[in-house]
Amino acid sequence: MEASGYTDHISRRFNKDIEELRNKVLAMGGLVEAQLSKAVSAIVSGDSELGLKVANDDYRVNNLEVSIDEECGRILATRSPAASDLRLIVAIIKTITDLERIGDEAEKIGYLAAKLAVMDRPPDSYSELKTLGNHVSHMLRDAMNAFARLDINDAYDVAAEDDRVDEEYEALTRQCITFMMEDPRSIKRVMNVTWVARSLERIGDHAKNICEYVIYMVQGKDVRHTAYSESSDLSPDAD
Amino acid sequence: MEASGYTDHISRRFNKDIEELRNKVLAMGGLVEAQLSKAVSAIVSGDSELGLKVANDDYRVNNLEVSIDEECGRILATRSPAASDLRLIVAIIKTITDLERIGDEAEKIGYLAAKLAVMDRPPDSYSELKTLGNHVSHMLRDAMNAFARLDINDAYDVAAEDDRVDEEYEALTRQCITFMMEDPRSIKRVMNVTWVARSLERIGDHAKNICEYVIYMVQGKDVRHTAYSESSDLSPDAD
Repeated sequence: MEASGYTDHISRRFNKDIEELRNKVLAMGGLVEAQLSKAVSAIVSGDSELGLKVANDDYRVNNLEVSIDEECGRILATRSPAASDLRLIVAIIKTITDLERIGDEAEKIGYLAAKLAVMDRPPDSYSELKTLGNHVSHMLRDAMNAFARLDINDAYDVAAEDDRVDEEYEALTRQCITFMMEDPRSIKRVMNVTWVARSLERIGDHAKNICEYVIYMVQGKDVRHTAYSESSDLSPDAD
Repeated sequence: MEASGYTDHISRRFNKDIEELRNKVLAMGGLVEAQLSKAVSAIVSGDSELGLKVANDDYRVNNLEVSIDEECGRILATRSPAASDLRLIVAIIKTITDLERIGDEAEKIGYLAAKLAVMDRPPDSYSELKTLGNHVSHMLRDAMNAFARLDINDAYDVAAEDDRVDEEYEALTRQCITFMMEDPRSIKRVMNVTWVARSLERIGDHAKNICEYVIYMVQGKDVRHTAYSESSDLSPDAD
């Protein structure tokens, strides 16, 4: 009974560690979501101060990444987790890398917002960037929800959404090129708009990556490099 | 003696597994280097067929990533490596993600090469893209050499090189903007040039990431999010 009590204790400690780790990842996701949302607001409202604040706050995202990464290393080294726990740790190591890179893109958008704030403003206040920004914000939130609930149906849906983000990004870029050709004096300003759009498109990619780690975590299947339309046999809804 | 022979056997098997894993990562690095170098050649020589070949061959990089990733998972699950072996596996999991993303950028450059091949060609045959391409190719090769030899002095040097790549990228982008303003008919073509430059700049970032994993592997120190100029106390040459 002593030994089993001891194992129980170890296992409870382990579950507590894992739970704390998951919560930390969710907190990091929340922080990154807030950074992205502020960066897009800074563009739309022409608020250079807010843009610079987002850029200056990126260190908070970085600190969380390093701290979670160390915690994962500690758990791997001291607890040698197996099977689904191991997949969870590996998925977390990858997820926080993508969250950190989303933070980097939000930082870039923050700097670009500060640049755009002092340039001519278009009458529509960058409504297409706002639309694209809201779209990828939703993708990111849904990806983190799928992570929180280990919901692979949602993970598949969010990952598939990335194609729509790519289409929106391409339409926006074509529009920028037309605009620059019609009014070459706008080139410097509009180039900044294309870079914001590119950063948002990247954030969509990272959100999709996170969904793929959720699927790997739950199913133990690697669905990266698979076209979702072709992989219906991998989908939990298939057959 | 039986038990010790058994441990010896396990440990030899383990070392062989680790050695094979390292070789696979180096092979993946070699493939990615070749993809990058072909993609840049396709731009410079206006060879659309070569550009499309690079894009179509990206699946080979992806397959290697999935296979190495599975191997890492297997080793973590069955051998519960500790300390430096564990850091090696974690560093490999991260390194192959960056190599795979470099492959994605090479794929994009391949497609852009095919687009640029059918457009007007500038008299200098995109010599600045060639220079930037060679620069990041060297960074990648040096990063993989630092990985192969676990050489942190080289890893620090290569990581610091990324600042020069960023400067080159920014100069090239400014030049593109000037060019588009002087000749708005060139906008469509020159936008493709800026996207190639952006992809090359990203590859520099990924090579830098790989160097940081090498430092983490050897020193057990996380140097990400550290300015190299400010972190001389982390450098092995310091004091």
